Amino acid sequence: MRRNLKYWGWGYEDKSLSDDETSNLLKSLTEFGISGSEKGKFPSLDNITLMKPRLKPPKSLETICTEDKYERVLHTFGQSQPDSIRTFLGDFINAPDLIAYPKNEADIINLFDWCGEVNAALIPYGAGSSVVGGVTSDVGENYNGTVTVDLSLMNKVMEVDNQSRAARIQGGARGPELEAGLKPMGFTLRHFPQSFEHSTLGGWIATRSGGHFATLYTHIDDLVENITMVTPVGKIQSLRVPGSGAGPSPDRLMLGSEGSLGIITEAWVRLQKKPTFKATAGFLFSNFLVAAKSVKAISQAGLYPANIRIVDNVELKINNASNGSSTLMIVSFENSDHPVDAWIARAEQCCLDNGGVIDVNWRNNPSANQESLVGAWREAFIRMPYNREKLTPRGIISDTFETAITWDKFETFYQNVKQITELAILQTTGNKGAVSCRFSHAYPDGPAPYFAFHANSEPNRMIEDWLAIKNAASDAIIANGGTITHHHAIGRDHSKWYRKQRPLLFEKVLNRSKEYLDPKGILNPGVIVT
Amino acid sequence: MRRNLKYWGWGYEDKSLSDDETSNLLKSLTEFGISGSEKGKFPSLDNITLMKPRLKPPKSLETICTEDKYERVLHTFGQSQPDSIRTFLGDFINAPDLIAYPKNEADIINLFDWCGEVNAALIPYGAGSSVVGGVTSDVGENYNGTVTVDLSLMNKVMEVDNQSRAARIQGGARGPELEAGLKPMGFTLRHFPQSFEHSTLGGWIATRSGGHFATLYTHIDDLVENITMVTPVGKIQSLRVPGSGAGPSPDRLMLGSEGSLGIITEAWVRLQKKPTFKATAGFLFSNFLVAAKSVKAISQAGLYPANIRIVDNVELKINNASNGSSTLMIVSFENSDHPVDAWIARAEQCCLDNGGVIDVNWRNNPSANQESLVGAWREAFIRMPYNREKLTPRGIISDTFETAITWDKFETFYQNVKQITELAILQTTGNKGAVSCRFSHAYPDGPAPYFAFHANSEPNRMIEDWLAIKNAASDAIIANGGTITHHHAIGRDHSKWYRKQRPLLFEKVLNRSKEYLDPKGILNPGVIVT
Repeated sequence: MRRNLKYWGWGYEDKSLSDDETSNLLKSLTEFGISGSEKGKFPSLDNITLMKPRLKPPKSLETICTEDKYERVLHTFGQSQPDSIRTFLGDFINAPDLIAYPKNEADIINLFDWCGEVNAALIPYGAGSSVVGGVTSDVGENYNGTVTVDLSLMNKVMEVDNQSRAARIQGGARGPELEAGLKPMGFTLRHFPQSFEHSTLGGWIATRSGGHFATLYTHIDDLVENITMVTPVGKIQSLRVPGSGAGPSPDRLMLGSEGSLGIITEAWVRLQKKPTFKATAGFLFSNFLVAAKSVKAISQAGLYPANIRIVDNVELKINNASNGSSTLMIVSFENSDHPVDAWIARAEQCCLDNGGVIDVNWRNNPSANQESLVGAWREAFIRMPYNREKLTPRGIISDTFETAITWDKFETFYQNVKQITELAILQTTGNKGAVSCRFSHAYPDGPAPYFAFHANSEPNRMIEDWLAIKNAASDAIIANGGTITHHHAIGRDHSKWYRKQRPLLFEKVLNRSKEYLDPKGILNPGVIVT
Repeated sequence: MRRNLKYWGWGYEDKSLSDDETSNLLKSLTEFGISGSEKGKFPSLDNITLMKPRLKPPKSLETICTEDKYERVLHTFGQSQPDSIRTFLGDFINAPDLIAYPKNEADIINLFDWCGEVNAALIPYGAGSSVVGGVTSDVGENYNGTVTVDLSLMNKVMEVDNQSRAARIQGGARGPELEAGLKPMGFTLRHFPQSFEHSTLGGWIATRSGGHFATLYTHIDDLVENITMVTPVGKIQSLRVPGSGAGPSPDRLMLGSEGSLGIITEAWVRLQKKPTFKATAGFLFSNFLVAAKSVKAISQAGLYPANIRIVDNVELKINNASNGSSTLMIVSFENSDHPVDAWIARAEQCCLDNGGVIDVNWRNNPSANQESLVGAWREAFIRMPYNREKLTPRGIISDTFETAITWDKFETFYQNVKQITELAILQTTGNKGAVSCRFSHAYPDGPAPYFAFHANSEPNRMIEDWLAIKNAASDAIIANGGTITHHHAIGRDHSKWYRKQRPLLFEKVLNRSKEYLDPKGILNPGVIVT
């Protein structure tokens, strides 16, 4: 039995916040002046009106296409804040006409050919967890219909190379599926984005996903040995080698292409042995900027922790992980080869030297990651994606945005972006809301700050309110020298700022690549190449 | 006073092998049946005939252009084996007509404009150490002349960011120049290719150079924060951030473009603090394949040594570093933050577990890298580039080629490539010569094997002999699944195999990028985009 996925929120229908979790979340938001009563419910399937499909698949594609209502509704949106609001408002005017489930590359080629013939837009779809409108079926007026291509049937681990610790995996494999396929051999990819359960290898590659590793192998880019991508004019398959200096890297054109140049059907990826040595420590700091200094010290020490995260007091409070004013740091090391004591001992010293106070001791403490604030925040982190379906119906905006910035600019950047976002919330909603920050990843030359915000609104003006805040925050990121995304991708929502950030001549080169690989312009219109 | 560079070999005129070093080299080669008496000398400048320059720079470019004979001779070739042979034979028919020394981006733009107008080929030139024909002025029949653009006057460290440990450096800065600029602040780039003294940051980026670090940050790619490249249609400058997931990476189009799309004028690069904690160990193994198992174990252990190199008995013998049959492993760790004992102790255990015997002990041994075989090979390594000018006049071919391959294919790959190269030497020269191998870099999923070969020939058939061997070796690399280059680049010499390796549709995309960025096709014709 297939578990049904929610079209109104995160994950499976049978999984959401408990009543207790919901009331705790709402209670902590009230401390920031954010509250709202339920203004309605997400519409039931019966109450959603869809246009009649404008497309009819040819005989050859009939068996892999469906116009089932639930399928069309499920595939209309991803997991962005506006996606959630529009779902709540029943705005399914742009629902895809058909959903296709290809079983192999031949099916994908047939879909490309047919969509080209009938001028249908084609949206590649992994598991639908884009938070930036990457799979939202808004393709403009230039198409006779939209086909969303769900890769979930191309989800196998095809081959494992024990010697090189690598595997060939199909693009449609979700996190749990590929990990299950690797587990019998003692291997793991250990790429655990927050979306892990509901995102795919192909989606990670297409969006340059950021995973579990907070340093070193941060992006999926670093875990990819080669990529196979099917485009409307043929297949690109790069050579599988551990490293190469032969011209510009073909993989790097596909990484970040977000479905605009082709569909990633498989890739060889680098694996790890399941880690057997692990150590986690937690530290408290008087504030976020002080904690950041420890992150800088550790990132520049050549220690490469698997996790090095700081979480500010606002995020801790909203997630009921603390009532204090401290910033939490979680640092952890892991390895399948040797104990990591020397590593974490040095990282600990960096924290103590920079004003940190131990929250959780790592010494002889295998359950450190479940204790105190470290454990409380970890629990909350796993549940966070489920929050929004409880907040949207109450008119509470809850969104995140993330970036990266060099250390020299960081403090000013952080203060400006936070302040401008708070001001935008205040001007838009009359309340400064809650703006929190953590680091998702850290490099020797700078951190990847990850902001979250919550704000009061009303369902009927939430889209505009959200857009006003999003615009202000994104403008602030670009104006202060950051990237519009470190790992959430561009999608439709970040297009405007991506165009500001991207060198103009590179845009021209990408446009020409698109013209060549997708001559009829059917692939994910409005994303990356516009 | 500017020290003159040799046009007939490596480095400055005042620096070459001593008579003792030369006779030792020749003596060890005789043990492989390779010997030859001097058949002549490299031609003196007076004995070289150049065509009259076909180009005359416009007034505005006069002060930065020269048609000086020495300059034209010096810039005709790089440092490949055929470059050396053709220099010996006095084959300067394709000498560039003019050498330009731009002082800034405006000069480069003027050069692009003028070369476009008069249909002159333009060869970007860092410090001329390409071993693959990347700066060799063979541009075919389609041009009215050739201008080699030497970037050596754009060689400054412009800005250092202490916080982020990064610096903005001009593309023409040679290794020693940029290190000298960083040293006062206690920083170092630590990118030390064998060509370090005679190669530039811009050249490293253009060719995806491989440096000092044998694991982790192997290629210059990993040390680059952003790149500025001037093209004939304008400038590309990527955003300087520590990491980004905003669409396909613009930097990765420029990395590996080898002067075919533009000239890299500056880049922000990631620095290290000068390492204060260092440890080196040496181990001996019964043979190369056994040693390789230790490299695999260490690379997969998450230890990230700065150096992990194995050198086979043939290479040791040729370089007078050993008379035995053992393979040497050198492993070293370095850090500016903490002692590396725990790291190297674990690496040592991996070697002992896999049959290694200690050659040099790391414990309490700060001069370990100068002792025994480790020290002997290190000395030889630094001197190797000077060998060829002594061998070419004796009709002895000496060349290297390098690649990368996953561990699953490595043993067969190694045996096939070595055997096929030996066979090609035998068939070409009547003697199987000497084919040696070391690892230059190592990844969790495979090593970067670096081969060297020496063979008997005669000056007047050396080019053909070399080509026959090079063809066989390169065919073997591609047939057995390797990349045609891990870090030497493509240049003119590897074009044929690069085209086999590169996905066809990616080639088409690159061609279109070139058409856009270099519409008159003047930039480094015959390299990368052909």
